[in-house]
Amino acid sequence: MRFKQLMEESKERKQSNIVLALDAVPSTTNNLLSASLKILRKVHPYICAVKLNRQLLLPLGLQRGIRGIIEESHRLDLPVIMDCKINDIGYTNRVIAENYFDAGFDAVTANPFVGWEDGLKPVFEEAKRRNRGVILLVYMSHKASREGYGQIVYDEHGKKKPQYVIFAEKALSWGADGAVVGGTYPEKIREVYEILRDEVPIYSPGIGTQGGDIKTAISAGAEYVIIGRAITLSENPEAAAKKFRDASQTP
Amino acid sequence: MRFKQLMEESKERKQSNIVLALDAVPSTTNNLLSASLKILRKVHPYICAVKLNRQLLLPLGLQRGIRGIIEESHRLDLPVIMDCKINDIGYTNRVIAENYFDAGFDAVTANPFVGWEDGLKPVFEEAKRRNRGVILLVYMSHKASREGYGQIVYDEHGKKKPQYVIFAEKALSWGADGAVVGGTYPEKIREVYEILRDEVPIYSPGIGTQGGDIKTAISAGAEYVIIGRAITLSENPEAAAKKFRDASQTP
Repeated sequence: MRFKQLMEESKERKQSNIVLALDAVPSTTNNLLSASLKILRKVHPYICAVKLNRQLLLPLGLQRGIRGIIEESHRLDLPVIMDCKINDIGYTNRVIAENYFDAGFDAVTANPFVGWEDGLKPVFEEAKRRNRGVILLVYMSHKASREGYGQIVYDEHGKKKPQYVIFAEKALSWGADGAVVGGTYPEKIREVYEILRDEVPIYSPGIGTQGGDIKTAISAGAEYVIIGRAITLSENPEAAAKKFRDASQTP
Repeated sequence: MRFKQLMEESKERKQSNIVLALDAVPSTTNNLLSASLKILRKVHPYICAVKLNRQLLLPLGLQRGIRGIIEESHRLDLPVIMDCKINDIGYTNRVIAENYFDAGFDAVTANPFVGWEDGLKPVFEEAKRRNRGVILLVYMSHKASREGYGQIVYDEHGKKKPQYVIFAEKALSWGADGAVVGGTYPEKIREVYEILRDEVPIYSPGIGTQGGDIKTAISAGAEYVIIGRAITLSENPEAAAKKFRDASQTP
């Protein structure tokens, strides 16, 4: 099954479009793994997938703690995304993707700025061979996103276009399984959704702590919302996850 | 001492401007660390620094094998660069930089496409606080580099510029300790050197296996050349490293 379908089924089964970003976890160095697993076990009924980033990868290690989180997520029927934002040369990108897929990740994120030939092509090849997913960054959630993702570029036909429109078009033509558009910029979600429609689902981070609003992001076209600190650093992660899930379902 | 000075001193002391990219190492999974250390111990007289990437990080782990390589490099008086190509939001970028600096890395690489505010600013802050370095990607060595790094962009004043020129200008204004320009594109090295002069040294990867020529890169303006597979996968890494070092010194 393609990653895109895996996510659709998970969304349907869990009746949730919330991707838990297990980034910041309140813990000391010594109990980072157990603290992460604890949050995961509490909130799993309200989420449809898990996203990891370098906050856990670097201290826990891909061959050690990270495998425990992937296994527990899969046991709870949740796909796991590695938010590694691949942006190296093809030779290295392939090794990065291989390592993450070998460890059990169902999808990786990648930066289309790298380009195709000897860039992200090997990542898409590796993903296709194993039925895993590639999610492309189209417009990020932070303040300076405008500086790169929002800049005006001449496309290959000499036509002026915003960078994120070019990236959204690449997501379509490269057959990406998802596109990241920051929930802090609902107007960008709307514009990208006009290009991607139901072909490539939009994943929207930046909801909660960074200021993005879940309902606004969804009504603008986000298929999945990525929520991290507003759940993981909450005094009651379970209640916070449930609150977001409920908010995502009411019109 | 700033990283830029640390590198200048190392270059002087070792009479070499070669940065060893310990990316691909011929080994089985079980002896990756020892195989890496073996190459390092053989070639250290001919190099001025070591660069690591995810090829070693993901299998060995930052808290385990990678520390052994950093320690051995430092024992051999070689600075170590983590080629992590940081390109996330500021909150995550800071944690990434902290983790690598805590582990002992002297510098990290980052992608200026992310922008400053809530992007790379925290990385530069963290580096400055600890006297570590930040090396920015300006033009990469792979085929599709043209697609992103080579695209024509409107800058903030509405002026048409190649992306890599904008990145080189950011390297200057942000106070970067280095700028990466692929050795496979000597004309780009020359153009970027015209902007950076002696303010920001150019690091040039893609020499050897990827097709870049060491003398051409240096005469175009590269201060350091990054060489990986042409040394690490050679039957005689020591002889290969010596050959590149010698080639870099003859006019």
